[in-house]
Amino acid sequence: MTLTGVEVVKHNNSKDCWVIVHGRAYDVTDFLPEHPGGPKIILKYAGKDATEEFEPIHPPDTLEKYLDKSKHLGPVDMTTVITEKTEESPDEKERQRRIAEMPLLEQCYNLLDFEAVARRVMKKGAWGYYSSAADDEITLRENHAAFHRIWFRPKILVDVEKVNFSTTMLGTKVDAPFYVTATALGKLGHVEGEVVLTRAARKHNVIQMIPTLASCSFDEIIDAAEGDQVQWLQLYVNKDRAITQRIVEHAEKRGCKGLFITVDAPQLGRREKDMRSKFMDPGSNVQNGQQTDNSQGAARAISSFIDPGLSWADISWFRSITKMPIMLKGVQRVEDVLKAIEAGVQGVVLSNHGGRQLDFARSGIEVLAETMPVLRELGLEDKIEIYIDGGIRRATDIIKALCLGAKGVGIGRPFLYAMSAYGFDGVDRAMQLLKDEMEMNMRLIGATSVGELNQSLVDTRSLFNHSSTPADNLAYAVYDPLVNPAQRAGMAAEMKGKAKL
Amino acid sequence: MTLTGVEVVKHNNSKDCWVIVHGRAYDVTDFLPEHPGGPKIILKYAGKDATEEFEPIHPPDTLEKYLDKSKHLGPVDMTTVITEKTEESPDEKERQRRIAEMPLLEQCYNLLDFEAVARRVMKKGAWGYYSSAADDEITLRENHAAFHRIWFRPKILVDVEKVNFSTTMLGTKVDAPFYVTATALGKLGHVEGEVVLTRAARKHNVIQMIPTLASCSFDEIIDAAEGDQVQWLQLYVNKDRAITQRIVEHAEKRGCKGLFITVDAPQLGRREKDMRSKFMDPGSNVQNGQQTDNSQGAARAISSFIDPGLSWADISWFRSITKMPIMLKGVQRVEDVLKAIEAGVQGVVLSNHGGRQLDFARSGIEVLAETMPVLRELGLEDKIEIYIDGGIRRATDIIKALCLGAKGVGIGRPFLYAMSAYGFDGVDRAMQLLKDEMEMNMRLIGATSVGELNQSLVDTRSLFNHSSTPADNLAYAVYDPLVNPAQRAGMAAEMKGKAKL
Amino acid sequence: MTLTGVEVVKHNNSKDCWVIVHGRAYDVTDFLPEHPGGPKIILKYAGKDATEEFEPIHPPDTLEKYLDKSKHLGPVDMTTVITEKTEESPDEKERQRRIAEMPLLEQCYNLLDFEAVARRVMKKGAWGYYSSAADDEITLRENHAAFHRIWFRPKILVDVEKVNFSTTMLGTKVDAPFYVTATALGKLGHVEGEVVLTRAARKHNVIQMIPTLASCSFDEIIDAAEGDQVQWLQLYVNKDRAITQRIVEHAEKRGCKGLFITVDAPQLGRREKDMRSKFMDPGSNVQNGQQTDNSQGAARAISSFIDPGLSWADISWFRSITKMPIMLKGVQRVEDVLKAIEAGVQGVVLSNHGGRQLDFARSGIEVLAETMPVLRELGLEDKIEIYIDGGIRRATDIIKALCLGAKGVGIGRPFLYAMSAYGFDGVDRAMQLLKDEMEMNMRLIGATSVGELNQSLVDTRSLFNHSSTPADNLAYAVYDPLVNPAQRAGMAAEMKGKAKL
Amino acid sequence: MTLTGVEVVKHNNSKDCWVIVHGRAYDVTDFLPEHPGGPKIILKYAGKDATEEFEPIHPPDTLEKYLDKSKHLGPVDMTTVITEKTEESPDEKERQRRIAEMPLLEQCYNLLDFEAVARRVMKKGAWGYYSSAADDEITLRENHAAFHRIWFRPKILVDVEKVNFSTTMLGTKVDAPFYVTATALGKLGHVEGEVVLTRAARKHNVIQMIPTLASCSFDEIIDAAEGDQVQWLQLYVNKDRAITQRIVEHAEKRGCKGLFITVDAPQLGRREKDMRSKFMDPGSNVQNGQQTDNSQGAARAISSFIDPGLSWADISWFRSITKMPIMLKGVQRVEDVLKAIEAGVQGVVLSNHGGRQLDFARSGIEVLAETMPVLRELGLEDKIEIYIDGGIRRATDIIKALCLGAKGVGIGRPFLYAMSAYGFDGVDRAMQLLKDEMEMNMRLIGATSVGELNQSLVDTRSLFNHSSTPADNLAYAVYDPLVNPAQRAGMAAEMKGKAKL
Repeated sequence: MTLTGVEVVKHNNSKDCWVIVHGRAYDVTDFLPEHPGGPKIILKYAGKDATEEFEPIHPPDTLEKYLDKSKHLGPVDMTTVITEKTEESPDEKERQRRIAEMPLLEQCYNLLDFEAVARRVMKKGAWGYYSSAADDEITLRENHAAFHRIWFRPKILVDVEKVNFSTTMLGTKVDAPFYVTATALGKLGHVEGEVVLTRAARKHNVIQMIPTLASCSFDEIIDAAEGDQVQWLQLYVNKDRAITQRIVEHAEKRGCKGLFITVDAPQLGRREKDMRSKFMDPGSNVQNGQQTDNSQGAARAISSFIDPGLSWADISWFRSITKMPIMLKGVQRVEDVLKAIEAGVQGVVLSNHGGRQLDFARSGIEVLAETMPVLRELGLEDKIEIYIDGGIRRATDIIKALCLGAKGVGIGRPFLYAMSAYGFDGVDRAMQLLKDEMEMNMRLIGATSVGELNQSLVDTRSLFNHSSTPADNLAYAVYDPLVNPAQRAGMAAEMKGKAKL
Repeated sequence: MTLTGVEVVKHNNSKDCWVIVHGRAYDVTDFLPEHPGGPKIILKYAGKDATEEFEPIHPPDTLEKYLDKSKHLGPVDMTTVITEKTEESPDEKERQRRIAEMPLLEQCYNLLDFEAVARRVMKKGAWGYYSSAADDEITLRENHAAFHRIWFRPKILVDVEKVNFSTTMLGTKVDAPFYVTATALGKLGHVEGEVVLTRAARKHNVIQMIPTLASCSFDEIIDAAEGDQVQWLQLYVNKDRAITQRIVEHAEKRGCKGLFITVDAPQLGRREKDMRSKFMDPGSNVQNGQQTDNSQGAARAISSFIDPGLSWADISWFRSITKMPIMLKGVQRVEDVLKAIEAGVQGVVLSNHGGRQLDFARSGIEVLAETMPVLRELGLEDKIEIYIDGGIRRATDIIKALCLGAKGVGIGRPFLYAMSAYGFDGVDRAMQLLKDEMEMNMRLIGATSVGELNQSLVDTRSLFNHSSTPADNLAYAVYDPLVNPAQRAGMAAEMKGKAKL
Repeated sequence: MTLTGVEVVKHNNSKDCWVIVHGRAYDVTDFLPEHPGGPKIILKYAGKDATEEFEPIHPPDTLEKYLDKSKHLGPVDMTTVITEKTEESPDEKERQRRIAEMPLLEQCYNLLDFEAVARRVMKKGAWGYYSSAADDEITLRENHAAFHRIWFRPKILVDVEKVNFSTTMLGTKVDAPFYVTATALGKLGHVEGEVVLTRAARKHNVIQMIPTLASCSFDEIIDAAEGDQVQWLQLYVNKDRAITQRIVEHAEKRGCKGLFITVDAPQLGRREKDMRSKFMDPGSNVQNGQQTDNSQGAARAISSFIDPGLSWADISWFRSITKMPIMLKGVQRVEDVLKAIEAGVQGVVLSNHGGRQLDFARSGIEVLAETMPVLRELGLEDKIEIYIDGGIRRATDIIKALCLGAKGVGIGRPFLYAMSAYGFDGVDRAMQLLKDEMEMNMRLIGATSVGELNQSLVDTRSLFNHSSTPADNLAYAVYDPLVNPAQRAGMAAEMKGKAKL
Repeated sequence: MTLTGVEVVKHNNSKDCWVIVHGRAYDVTDFLPEHPGGPKIILKYAGKDATEEFEPIHPPDTLEKYLDKSKHLGPVDMTTVITEKTEESPDEKERQRRIAEMPLLEQCYNLLDFEAVARRVMKKGAWGYYSSAADDEITLRENHAAFHRIWFRPKILVDVEKVNFSTTMLGTKVDAPFYVTATALGKLGHVEGEVVLTRAARKHNVIQMIPTLASCSFDEIIDAAEGDQVQWLQLYVNKDRAITQRIVEHAEKRGCKGLFITVDAPQLGRREKDMRSKFMDPGSNVQNGQQTDNSQGAARAISSFIDPGLSWADISWFRSITKMPIMLKGVQRVEDVLKAIEAGVQGVVLSNHGGRQLDFARSGIEVLAETMPVLRELGLEDKIEIYIDGGIRRATDIIKALCLGAKGVGIGRPFLYAMSAYGFDGVDRAMQLLKDEMEMNMRLIGATSVGELNQSLVDTRSLFNHSSTPADNLAYAVYDPLVNPAQRAGMAAEMKGKAKL
């Protein structure tokens, strides 16, 4: 039996709450208190069609999985559902104007250009989710800046007519030493979500790492792959290990060639930029100081299942349930690289989660520079594969990582931004630009293959020097610089110090 | 006998000066020259009600204590006192507008947010007093910046389901490794003054240090405590040791559990921002160069009793008059930490008085990093408890201090700002935010208790590097940068270099 | 037979394309796909006079050399050619206004002043070509900044009445320790091109290095020399070694006294500023994502002949075909200086091609400071002559290089800018200013001849410290700094963070 | 016989040029080509009264000394001289407005405040002369900034009730460890010139060093001293040693107690800010490129007599002609301090001439930190007195210098600025502020006398670190930062990059 909009709209409050998603009605009354994003956001759509809000932040099988079948009320005759004509906000109008005037794809010459365009054309909340990071975002910026403290010592008069920057990662031959790392909620940036990245990775023969928190379902992303295209799985470990086991086994069955266990996120980070961008003023009738539902952004909402109890003891269990190579993603000190070797994993990703977790965590490239001399000292440098991610924007960054001993690098946000701005064509061009830069810069550094990249080609003496930290914006904003004595007439004006309070 | 306003107003000059405070009249004629804040500020209220000005910067028992009983003229019938309708200044109107539009408490996501709001809604003079510091305020900013030269080396795969950041301070069990340090003149920020902090400290089970220069009386602050709530006493030592002895004995009797003797302030600092914000133009009939009363800000006015002769020799006397643990607040080099151990005190606070005393004093965190290796070398690390204060705004700052060996940290201005902006609710939320950050960041660094925080978790190699100092604002403001040759037509305009003189 | 404009204009499309250059018609139909700058730019002039566009970026013998004689159609009666009255663009009008108001030559007090004037008066594309550099232009700026990390240790009470800063370079006596290094496309800056530099070099008795990619022909530049004026040849090595041999032998015959083989450019760099300044919007009827011809700037267009296969093995061949001293231009690490000595060349230029090739290549001055101690250690410091170029703007920069062991320095862009702004007079004054600065600063450092300049006169301890890198403009532009909570009324406005998207 | 204006005005050209100074006419026709400031500036006043222009930059005895008596034409009846009513320029009107509104003296809380006021109220040319420095003014700013890389390690619990910062300099007891160092052309700042400084030095019992290039005559400055006030002589050594001998012997006779021979200025520096501020556009009828008289600012004009041949060999001669202690002013490396000891002088001033000579000379404080350990190593630390000057603005700067081993510090520009803004009262207050800061900061660092200041009280580890240099303003101004792709509509606008060309 098909429901009508008139029927659904009666269930429009917290005691009796139905919502429509993709043309089907669901009774979510009992689920309200458990909703990781809080009940408030659902109640906004009580008795209405919630598809548009639901879509980007829930994989399509969410309701199947998490809502008891008895609450599935069946199809709704959507012609009977009154669509609220939402007045386009001034912000949205402005955004549409920016989209109309966005630069041609050909005007993007580097990865940061895509970020600049994405910043203009993405919805505020989506931009806030992608771009935000932990606390003062010091680590976010350090990830990129750290590469700027490494300089080249290029060789000349090397025959570089043919340069080849292909390599292998966990046994897979790839055309360039980067992979698409896992990032959550792809549909916030593009209506098709992560499968866009799948197609681009295919075209450029690089590996995609599939995120646990994708907007597309895992199988959709696997299905989007073609031929012998290789994919890896990024894994947040569930408190319920049975669920985790199902996911891992399923991934292996579907052909995933690597299991990247996230180890830097026992709890997902607090990102104030994201929180601030989502804050909604409840209106003037709210008393100051009264408790209001304070959304903590998309990240916290979708991650409550992650197990903070994950520990080294679990690694052997993983080895027992899968034959996929096991990688630890988010290792942050050489001691833990040694432990990883001992634990028998195939490799590590030196990463701080794109600066989204612990502020003042060091960059992957710095941890790499700390790690490799120790491994070489101990004769362990070939025991595992080491990757890094975070802050990579140029082929020179990749080359620096390879010179220091990385097998390859993961790139996340830049591809998301390219996708958000220009879809598949954007990601395609972003990857092509990176390859063009790789070819050029391999030549200029005097190396014809990745095997020739070594530490004598870089000067890292300043890498560990943190005497200049990124701007501390919040602290700066509240500091009134000292001023000289004001002119007598102009005193009132000048005394204010910085202009606007 | 009750006086009338008509009677009081006759005594309105420097030869015969009465003022009304809290409904009682006082003859302050003889006291004028002795007033630490200068006679001028009193004469402004000669013959009038001075309560509003008097209130925030004098403890309620001030007149009892410092004005001879014979000058207490008794109650005034306040219905007979003409209240001058003070025209609201444009500055004050603007401030009231800002207060009306201030952000909701829920929009404050970190300690600096409270400072941003306080800056907008506090009175200029109060903001000037709280926020100012010594000379060019280099140390003020360094206190915060120093933490930014310390980076984390987090551990992964530690079971952090349960994290516990409670600790003990001088034997008291507290729920978080911070305490409310002593700051003067709480009523400048909030009408109730320091007792607001007492209540918040109670709610969060952290210790409050009671300032000598509180706006509330010592007993009011003690009385505001509940149950077994622990408080400490911060002490400026009086030239008259008998007064000091009375204060110490009284504090011990009232239950104070620690005596923090301020040792970095033989004279209270000169704070130019505060001075400048208080300067009043005496009008155009004053000759250039003629001496005018030049207020040096609230700090100097209230501190003339402090004894610059205090020395190591006094410490044994303190030990003789109290059983409270004795702490030295304001130690600034490892040599003096060693002396403190020798002198038999229970601990030290490595502090530079919030940057308000000696500019270019180093941050507490840097002195800590200098101190602990020496103590460990000498086997003295357990002989005393070491605290730091200054510049702490994030849980990561606290964790860094604990990793380096501090028992805990003092936080002052942030709680004052939270109180000034939102009262008790503000301080409550500020403390809760710190606790939330503590929990999150303990997890992310891979430590389940404060005992697990150690120096291997931080990289301090850049901490002692001062090659980048904070902006030197006064010097920058007077420097004309070199300019390129001007266009001929536009020459006059461009030649000026920086715009406004 | 003389052609008419009416005749030529018929051949105005990609299937049949004639163009007029310097009053003669050419059939370039078959050449279109081979044109290094792409066919599009030629088609713009199909059937028309292309002289103005052709002139600055092609040496006059280009058509002779590269277009088969059969395509030379002979003279055109230019009175029959309709000159399109090109509407002056607003940009060009603005530029003409700036030219009219440009500063007097006498207002230029240093080399950077010429750059400031050139920036205002040059055409956008020409400025883009001269001023651009690789990737984020970090090395471009580092070249100049590196000198700022070297400080002087001047001697006093030296009789400096007479100071003499003449020296010899490859056996030639010169009046100052700098030479005019090779830079491409001089006619972009001045209608006469490189011969302007020849005349100024003559006047000041310094050496000019003739660029392979000059706008003037090699012989024109040689012919412009007077008397015993010495010139060197900069060489891009052609894939066709026979061409290279002809060039080298011709240069030697014409009297060149040094052969500087460029070794840092197996492929000419990608310069995004140049590319962006040349991008032309094809109009609104182009679909987003559709491939368009994307000019990569002048550099890539004119350099396709360069051989990326050039290697150390080629050096002996060069020695076999010429008696000129052989120099390697673009050496970037001490190991390669040692190899150069082994290969028997007369010297090296420590250079990164003005920052136009590999970003994060180190400055010449830093490589010099790395190199000389090693050479001295090995007793090789007199085996070759070492020059540097890049970033030199002041005599103090030259003196620093000489103190560290350089025989002399090459200066490129500054003379181009002086020429672009003021022609010969500009270059003359630029050289005179440098000499004035040399005299002054030799005195102030306490040296009467270049022989007295040594490493004890400089403090280079900070030279290798790269903890502060130049601003990372693209990354900065896309970063939204964190903001404090907005006022409630003003929330929408403030939330935007940085103003313009 | 008294001349009339009518008579004088006839001699108004370069072939026949009379000028009036202080009511007397002079024939300067033959002198024109020799005038150190160039003939042009004199010709502006040919036939007219030049007193106002002449006054501040020539000592009163100039015409006596340098113009042959035969050219002294005698008194002029000034009532017959037509005063040109010079239209007040818009710049001057603006300046007068600023003077009318200048802050009260009491609003100046530190030395930089005087500089801020002076910058507003001084004439452009005078400000340009005082404030300018060599080349890019890197050393000018480094002089101040270097102090910011030194941090304190204060002692606590020292009885500082009485602090005494008096000391002795070359045997003279002074009330504070600073002296007024020599600076030229005092009348540019104040109509009375250097005697204002004499009076202030007297009041505060500090020493004044009398400049060779004073606006007042030497004897006027000596005569302005009172009682046993001590003065020193700063000496530029003349090419004609007989003149120098006369000056030295006269100074000794008049009671000078120290001879400070300037050794860092064999030639006076080129100061582009000064030159630019003096440049006058000769009008549009001047051809571009045509040579025009290009004033090099006041410094060059007045210093042509200085002997660049001065050398160590001259020192013994000085010792033979005077009993005054001989000091070398401008020593810049430890090797030369050792030479100075060997040469038997009484002391040195580590100085770079206020950054006005060699750019990238190191600060005096850095040279001091280099020098003292060597002297102590060699047991020479008591053989001479060491002073520094340059960049001192705070008592903390003075204390740092004393901790590092300086006997005292020279302060120049700050007193000039105080004088220029407020005359004697300004200098008086500036000195008093320094003394107040001295007392306060001696207390806060825990020292009761200058003898207790030692190197354990400072941390200088970062002093030699020059990784962060001051802003390079000229280079910055000409650099176009890379920009992201422009919106299509807004392309033209954004493509411009930095706004104004």
